[in-house]
Amino acid sequence: MPKFHWEDFTPGQVTEYGPREVTADEIKAFAAEFDPQPMHLDEEAARASLVGGLCASGWHSCAILMRIIADGFVLDSASMGATGCPEVKWLAPVRPGDRLRVRMKVLGTRASNSRPDLGFVDARFDMLNADDLPVMTLTSHLMLGRRTGAAP
Amino acid sequence: MPKFHWEDFTPGQVTEYGPREVTADEIKAFAAEFDPQPMHLDEEAARASLVGGLCASGWHSCAILMRIIADGFVLDSASMGATGCPEVKWLAPVRPGDRLRVRMKVLGTRASNSRPDLGFVDARFDMLNADDLPVMTLTSHLMLGRRTGAAP
Repeated sequence: MPKFHWEDFTPGQVTEYGPREVTADEIKAFAAEFDPQPMHLDEEAARASLVGGLCASGWHSCAILMRIIADGFVLDSASMGATGCPEVKWLAPVRPGDRLRVRMKVLGTRASNSRPDLGFVDARFDMLNADDLPVMTLTSHLMLGRRTGAAP
Repeated sequence: MPKFHWEDFTPGQVTEYGPREVTADEIKAFAAEFDPQPMHLDEEAARASLVGGLCASGWHSCAILMRIIADGFVLDSASMGATGCPEVKWLAPVRPGDRLRVRMKVLGTRASNSRPDLGFVDARFDMLNADDLPVMTLTSHLMLGRRTGAAP
């Protein structure tokens, strides 16, 4: 029985998860598989780029955020996935050695009209580095199971 | 000298990239590292879930889309990254064996006010499976270098 259901999320609630450290090897491995642009793959080329040094692919940042919240609550929840993100913003480069945390704020919740066993949670996630600088932010529509006994 | 610069993208332009096939092993490997929810990791558990069978993490879908457009044009462009995505929608599960293509539509372009050497391209990307069903869509603000000689 998972610990967290739809009913456990209330508008305004703020929680924090992590930290998780990212290494240069992880940045390059992700880039080699999914986003082999020089700024994510090679220190020398990255120094000459707009970002001025090796940094993680934006999609790697999203994946790291996912892993932090997975360990934080998703894997111990009645998660049924997500339908999408109305916003993803990459605010600052994620660098080798960054220790990242995720702050979650519940923006709103609503029960499903069609399925009495699930509900939606709209949340905002800010990923912060050790200097408390937000490196990315995203909002997402999560789907979560309701506790057994929810009114049909 | 990269082939594609900011000037090569014009509003309304549609291009298509791919295909790229995704395997069950890739789906599970990505999930194990970044999104270890049962529906992305284990066939048996996935069959019992809302999605009814093993499917890729939404972030894996984004990463695959990135790789398809990287091979399609980004790696041969003056890409300077992206600031974010005003919208990401996961529309249908990405399954093992899916052959995915990405259709790009240029929504608009504008020169940078502050930097004469770069411009922005707003684009919509639809990722389609072999049945032409859209599995995800995202819009993104791309930054691209302008051709040498652009007016300062």
